[in-house]
Amino acid sequence: MKMSQLLGKRFKEKPSDTKLKSHELLIRGGYIRPVSNGIFSSLLPSLKTLKNVEKIVREEMNAISGQEVEMPLVQPKELWEESGRYFAINDELARLKDRTGRDFVLAMTHEEATVALARTEATSYKDFPFMIYQFAKKFRDEARPRGGLIRVKEFTMKDAYSFHTNKQDLEDYYNQCAVAYGRIFARAGIPETVAIKSDSGMMGGSVSHEYMLLTEAGEDTIVTCSKCDYRANKEIAESVVSVENDDEAEKPIEKVSTPNTESIEDLAKFFNVPESKFAKTIFYKPTDKISKPVLVMIRGDIEVNENKLAKVIQSMPELADDAAINAVGAVVGYASAYGIENKCYVVVDKTLVKEKNLITGANEKDYHIKNFNVGRDLSNPIIADVAAVREGDKCIKCGSPLELHRGIEVGNIFQLGDKYTKSMEMRYTDESGSLATPIMGCYGIGIGRLMASVLEVRNDDKGPIWPVSIAPWKVAVLSLLPKDGEGEIMEVSKKIYEELARKGIDTIWDERKLNPGEKFADADLLGTPLHLVISQRNIENGQVEWKERATGNKGFVSAKDVVSFAENWVKEELQKLNAAADMVKPLPLEELSN
Amino acid sequence: MKMSQLLGKRFKEKPSDTKLKSHELLIRGGYIRPVSNGIFSSLLPSLKTLKNVEKIVREEMNAISGQEVEMPLVQPKELWEESGRYFAINDELARLKDRTGRDFVLAMTHEEATVALARTEATSYKDFPFMIYQFAKKFRDEARPRGGLIRVKEFTMKDAYSFHTNKQDLEDYYNQCAVAYGRIFARAGIPETVAIKSDSGMMGGSVSHEYMLLTEAGEDTIVTCSKCDYRANKEIAESVVSVENDDEAEKPIEKVSTPNTESIEDLAKFFNVPESKFAKTIFYKPTDKISKPVLVMIRGDIEVNENKLAKVIQSMPELADDAAINAVGAVVGYASAYGIENKCYVVVDKTLVKEKNLITGANEKDYHIKNFNVGRDLSNPIIADVAAVREGDKCIKCGSPLELHRGIEVGNIFQLGDKYTKSMEMRYTDESGSLATPIMGCYGIGIGRLMASVLEVRNDDKGPIWPVSIAPWKVAVLSLLPKDGEGEIMEVSKKIYEELARKGIDTIWDERKLNPGEKFADADLLGTPLHLVISQRNIENGQVEWKERATGNKGFVSAKDVVSFAENWVKEELQKLNAAADMVKPLPLEELSN
Repeated sequence: MKMSQLLGKRFKEKPSDTKLKSHELLIRGGYIRPVSNGIFSSLLPSLKTLKNVEKIVREEMNAISGQEVEMPLVQPKELWEESGRYFAINDELARLKDRTGRDFVLAMTHEEATVALARTEATSYKDFPFMIYQFAKKFRDEARPRGGLIRVKEFTMKDAYSFHTNKQDLEDYYNQCAVAYGRIFARAGIPETVAIKSDSGMMGGSVSHEYMLLTEAGEDTIVTCSKCDYRANKEIAESVVSVENDDEAEKPIEKVSTPNTESIEDLAKFFNVPESKFAKTIFYKPTDKISKPVLVMIRGDIEVNENKLAKVIQSMPELADDAAINAVGAVVGYASAYGIENKCYVVVDKTLVKEKNLITGANEKDYHIKNFNVGRDLSNPIIADVAAVREGDKCIKCGSPLELHRGIEVGNIFQLGDKYTKSMEMRYTDESGSLATPIMGCYGIGIGRLMASVLEVRNDDKGPIWPVSIAPWKVAVLSLLPKDGEGEIMEVSKKIYEELARKGIDTIWDERKLNPGEKFADADLLGTPLHLVISQRNIENGQVEWKERATGNKGFVSAKDVVSFAENWVKEELQKLNAAADMVKPLPLEELSN
Repeated sequence: MKMSQLLGKRFKEKPSDTKLKSHELLIRGGYIRPVSNGIFSSLLPSLKTLKNVEKIVREEMNAISGQEVEMPLVQPKELWEESGRYFAINDELARLKDRTGRDFVLAMTHEEATVALARTEATSYKDFPFMIYQFAKKFRDEARPRGGLIRVKEFTMKDAYSFHTNKQDLEDYYNQCAVAYGRIFARAGIPETVAIKSDSGMMGGSVSHEYMLLTEAGEDTIVTCSKCDYRANKEIAESVVSVENDDEAEKPIEKVSTPNTESIEDLAKFFNVPESKFAKTIFYKPTDKISKPVLVMIRGDIEVNENKLAKVIQSMPELADDAAINAVGAVVGYASAYGIENKCYVVVDKTLVKEKNLITGANEKDYHIKNFNVGRDLSNPIIADVAAVREGDKCIKCGSPLELHRGIEVGNIFQLGDKYTKSMEMRYTDESGSLATPIMGCYGIGIGRLMASVLEVRNDDKGPIWPVSIAPWKVAVLSLLPKDGEGEIMEVSKKIYEELARKGIDTIWDERKLNPGEKFADADLLGTPLHLVISQRNIENGQVEWKERATGNKGFVSAKDVVSFAENWVKEELQKLNAAADMVKPLPLEELSN
């Protein structure tokens, strides 16, 4: 590619509406342009990078016997009614009517279409196992698209679906896929990506893992142990919390006047004791299954993890309003379960169980009680882990301090079990001739998000530092033209450019009549891993100057060897990435089932 | 690929709902499955064929300096309001609202998105010319999807858009693109595809060509000369029609009683003269610009081509109803322009001009007039070519008889001019520093339709006969297992299969425990160009039997040479296709402009 032909303006200034580095650089480098909120067009540099990512993913999917297929984006409503998701999903699922008034959706994932496709083709145990995958457009009507390609509405996802006749087979394949995922991220240049056991959420099923790239740009919070291999999404992470108040005998309850102390901070000041000395109380609305308000008590210095609470009450918790709190006889700012147990569904965080003589609300304005002891003062609460893990809490595996990180989810894998095959009535004849329901796994990687995530952690002030595997061009030939004409520069450059092309090395040649500074700036914005600089002085010395984008390392190579030098350089860089891929280990066996 | 792993049932029976051969074979061979009317999923054999087609198209687009991009399917209404198409297109354009109530469309083509992308990036004459293209999902809410992948609602199209600063540059590039298109069809195995100058229709602009594959399965009618290179879509085809009644002097008008003769057939019987002796009359509704009914007179043996008429009246003609005909003083079955000229917008087909003494309606029930002569009896009619070409009419270029064929449109190219750049206000600074509007060309190929079209003309009763360039697998290794065990067959087959894979030849190995008949049937349904048959007897003779799918030619090759034999065979077949591509000629210069 000649630089003069490349469509797309590049510029130095940070666009005002970009918060994430990847978004900024994708705009500044002429990679993407917005069409609507969360909807983008890709210019050639982006398209080439995306196709390189896709190629790696395809190779790894084929290596684990994946069969590439293609399923449609526009799907009839009936398909989504079969699985129950037509009504279970709300605004995220875009809906439309065709010219005859029939209802359709824009697929946001393809479980329904996959089962509909597979159930007519795989009807005997002999047809199993198999995995089909695609690179397909999806549409999710996201409430809050963000960060350029990090969270968008329209996107291309590699989604894979495996089908099995038994759990062991699913677990084995799931782990093969986990290794393939590790290899994909390593080959794409982010071997530091970690697999974290996660909550399956909307997707249903039991065991699942998220692949997290740790970066401040992430939306998720990841808990890792500073010492052992424990790691979890904060949504489900556990920790050991030291008991702070366990060295006392239980004292009698005592009501105390505490005027104007509606927060834990106020109370800590009022009593001049640490926040861990208090039991705080949070009220949630009744659920489909629980007719009373949900009352949660937890230690004053710990927050409720609503995802954990959701598992206890089998519904996503929603905070109750003041009127509902008053209605059960509690007073906002002075509440506890004490004395109103029967009117609520009481959940007590397990960290409160061993704490002695806590201070909590008296359910009376401007009064608290002292010496509250869960075991003694509550009759039959549900004890559960609903605590949000904090930086420094102890690891449940080794007791070392835990660390909190931000992370971007760059992939996920799920053991779906029979969630879709059962509701959509997929059946096969087993070896005994009986009908049985197969089980499924599903495995997703957003191609655009993966590209943007790599960029998020591989860049400097000048632009992207693309790993050679996914870089839009591997080599940039920069012809530095003197002011008084071209000399031999164009001729020498052209020869090198054409030889590199013949060797199959994707090269961009900056042959424009611009000053060197502009050319260096553009080469940096395109993130080309290896720069070859052709200048008059270098030609006179029979040399070409090379520079590594990532390290800044420079050197000279003789003009006659430059093509094989570049060829070897690219090969070696690819080998490094492949070597990292070969280091990927399967998931620990204990993480494969619940 | 091992056949035992391939997902997708194959079967012998013709599905009842398939009319076209390509549709039948795509279903029977396990290539595609319907999801909804005009919406399909592709299994691996289809996906691989589609990707092979895509690869050819990509190579040819890159060879003419195309830059691959990607634009979204879901687009904001505002973009389509800019071009005016939001309101100009009706039911075909699918519309939806997002969660906030904003209006979006599913793009059916990408002119709007292309101009929106290009207008911020190409702002100086130095940025021109350029071409961007994509393989993008489109959605058209077709009223009548048909023929499997021939006419669908959701499809992947290669759409390319070129931008130029002057007409000559556009015409030159248009012709480069025409050659690339010829090469694509030749490489995909249908070199017989013809470029036909066509009506631009909805796309606007002036010059355009359709690429037509002549087959009975087509929806279009193509007119070709039996001798010279004249060819045109019937929608705009012209011909020389012999004057049948020109050897007489004009006689006086004579009114004759012709009871119960409302059709030309009736009249021809009544008078016992050929249909060419009559002038028939058709009424159309008034248009936006023409306030009177449109009255068309044409010779009795010729039909009106409404596309030609549309150009005359600048609107698609719609037939008038009887009431409207009566309102201008005409009588259905007995009408003509005679005596009611002032009440209608009269269009006379040019074939009537030289005909003498015709019979036509008297505008009175059960009466016609004889000796009607256009030049004498009408005062100021519009004379135009609105005649539908008939088989056997004479070529306007060489006078030889014309032939009519059915054809499928497998691609099209348009000189759009400034249709979109003007309405969407794309501007660039020209060499003199003034603002100017660039002009565009656009170039489309439906990938799925191209695959199905090739299949439509390359098949036999047993299945597809894929050209080697796009075949999902190039070679099939068929292991014919004896009933009493495997012998050496599996071992020998595996070795050949693996060596072929190492050579990069996409091979499918049928290693299933099935009888030979089933294996041959499946290999035929997959359309694999070269079959290698491994049987016990062949092994004993140190031989492998080969068979060409297309020709049925068979032979034996020694087991040790079979891999290089297959490799060479594939190479030679590809060379034949490439040789056909190298024969492609540019369009005649006179077809490049109007």
